[in-house]
Amino acid sequence: MEVSKVVSAINKATEKGISELYLVACGGSLVDMYASKYFLESEAKKVVTGLYTANEFVHATPKRLNKDSVVIVCSHGGNTPESVEAAKVAKEGGAHTIGLTHNQDAALLKYSDHAFLYEWGADSDVKNNPMAIILGITVEILNVTEGYEYYKAFKDGMEKINGIIKKGEKLVEGRAKVFADKYQNEDLFYVLSSGASYGHAYGFSICSLMEMQWLNAAPIHSGEYFHGPFEVTDKETPFILMMNEGRTRTLDERALKFLNQYAEKVEVVDAKELGISKIQDEVVEFFNPVLFYSILCVYREALAEVREHPLETRRYMGKVAY
Amino acid sequence: MEVSKVVSAINKATEKGISELYLVACGGSLVDMYASKYFLESEAKKVVTGLYTANEFVHATPKRLNKDSVVIVCSHGGNTPESVEAAKVAKEGGAHTIGLTHNQDAALLKYSDHAFLYEWGADSDVKNNPMAIILGITVEILNVTEGYEYYKAFKDGMEKINGIIKKGEKLVEGRAKVFADKYQNEDLFYVLSSGASYGHAYGFSICSLMEMQWLNAAPIHSGEYFHGPFEVTDKETPFILMMNEGRTRTLDERALKFLNQYAEKVEVVDAKELGISKIQDEVVEFFNPVLFYSILCVYREALAEVREHPLETRRYMGKVAY
Repeated sequence: MEVSKVVSAINKATEKGISELYLVACGGSLVDMYASKYFLESEAKKVVTGLYTANEFVHATPKRLNKDSVVIVCSHGGNTPESVEAAKVAKEGGAHTIGLTHNQDAALLKYSDHAFLYEWGADSDVKNNPMAIILGITVEILNVTEGYEYYKAFKDGMEKINGIIKKGEKLVEGRAKVFADKYQNEDLFYVLSSGASYGHAYGFSICSLMEMQWLNAAPIHSGEYFHGPFEVTDKETPFILMMNEGRTRTLDERALKFLNQYAEKVEVVDAKELGISKIQDEVVEFFNPVLFYSILCVYREALAEVREHPLETRRYMGKVAY
Repeated sequence: MEVSKVVSAINKATEKGISELYLVACGGSLVDMYASKYFLESEAKKVVTGLYTANEFVHATPKRLNKDSVVIVCSHGGNTPESVEAAKVAKEGGAHTIGLTHNQDAALLKYSDHAFLYEWGADSDVKNNPMAIILGITVEILNVTEGYEYYKAFKDGMEKINGIIKKGEKLVEGRAKVFADKYQNEDLFYVLSSGASYGHAYGFSICSLMEMQWLNAAPIHSGEYFHGPFEVTDKETPFILMMNEGRTRTLDERALKFLNQYAEKVEVVDAKELGISKIQDEVVEFFNPVLFYSILCVYREALAEVREHPLETRRYMGKVAY
């Protein structure tokens, strides 16, 4: 289904236009929503946004939720109980629900007024992956409700990002192997970023490292690093820094300068060096996490191979009751 | 200065009433604001909120910021450059600024339309500490703009919380020593919580453990735990679980059940057991982090003593350029 048609249909069905966009999911799917939260908090003058892990949305539902709200719920398998329940709660609250899933038989679809069955896998164009679809919906909502000055630039960026990623993936292939060899025996990583990409610092920590590699990990916002976290910095502790292009780059640069002086195990993934600047200045920052997701997949695959710990290995998820 | 008078004065000076409350700070001061963000996101139907690490607010200032916005900036020493700059940016954007600091000569005060010089130290009533003051301002803003059904219950809770804390601190004194003895040689802790207290899971990680003890640490939202992070759970990894009273307790209980089955190093700090239920049901959840802050201070002091690493020890903060 086409994003602009869905958003336009919902907006017409509201009384005064879409007033809220709630982004609700768990784990990796929640990570895919962070860029949209950042975008709206930065760009919107009217539309309100909220980002919720599904079970908190279910048990502490925002009182603001109303019939002019849109709630996007994303679940890869589409049957995560609290995500399905969140969509149900949203519908009961009168909101318009949009479900995203990779499973056409998902229970989530039962409570989705509109649904996107997204593509998945290394061969798919990233614009058809959930992070880009959700960001696309978000930008459409802003544009249709209050107008978005850089709408065309954003659409243009969406056409360019997949090509940038494909080149970037090749560029880091060798580096990722060096990284994996060098850090294969580490048991902890800190992952730094800022702006639209902070969600992916969280995502790489909890999904790629903790879930898929059983490694200890924690995200640190580059701006927050200097207000507590940096005291653990030493020559033994590994840091991965995802440097954004755009307004918050200066925060990442400050972290880099410090790390270069006091740490020794520092891996930098720089969106600017990877060619993201082909996208227009005013919108480029929102594409950083789309790039980082794919690029960091190359790193995690290299790490999984050297560590002989396949990315699919689980001990609890889907194996025990919880 | 009295909170209600300040809020009332600001509200009268706006065109249509206060429309946004931005919460802006760094590190520990930002942690003190999380409960307010959670409160407004849950309870408000009109007032919008945003929580920002100061340097991101400076470089990616929300376009929504306007002359009817209130921006609270908190800085203990009052001279953190990006916090001072954030207050300046807020004023330039036409917003009403409220500065909180422990330093009467703070540069922050230069850009604060209203200021609260707060008390600090173990002897002060927590209602005069920044977390409670900011929460008090937030509740006043909601009440004065759109009304808050449980305003009286909240005020009553604020009168009760210090007494609950004093009893709780005595109750955990022995436990904290056992905890410190048992875990003195650990180099990593995961800190779990949910709802209004997630900010303090973050705060205990980055301030108490990383900054003050140079220990590795990461916060995990109890709801997110099952969607990635729990794969690192084993009998060797230590977890601290702060169990809330209120709507999100069920999320914490689910985490506890899993931890009891698959982990062995689990320290539970339970607000309910510590007597928080004396506060009315509809507002009790917002007081959990106020309690947890003080209670976890007992734990960190015990840990600092056993580890012979005083809480004031720094290697970078205030010692090197950054």
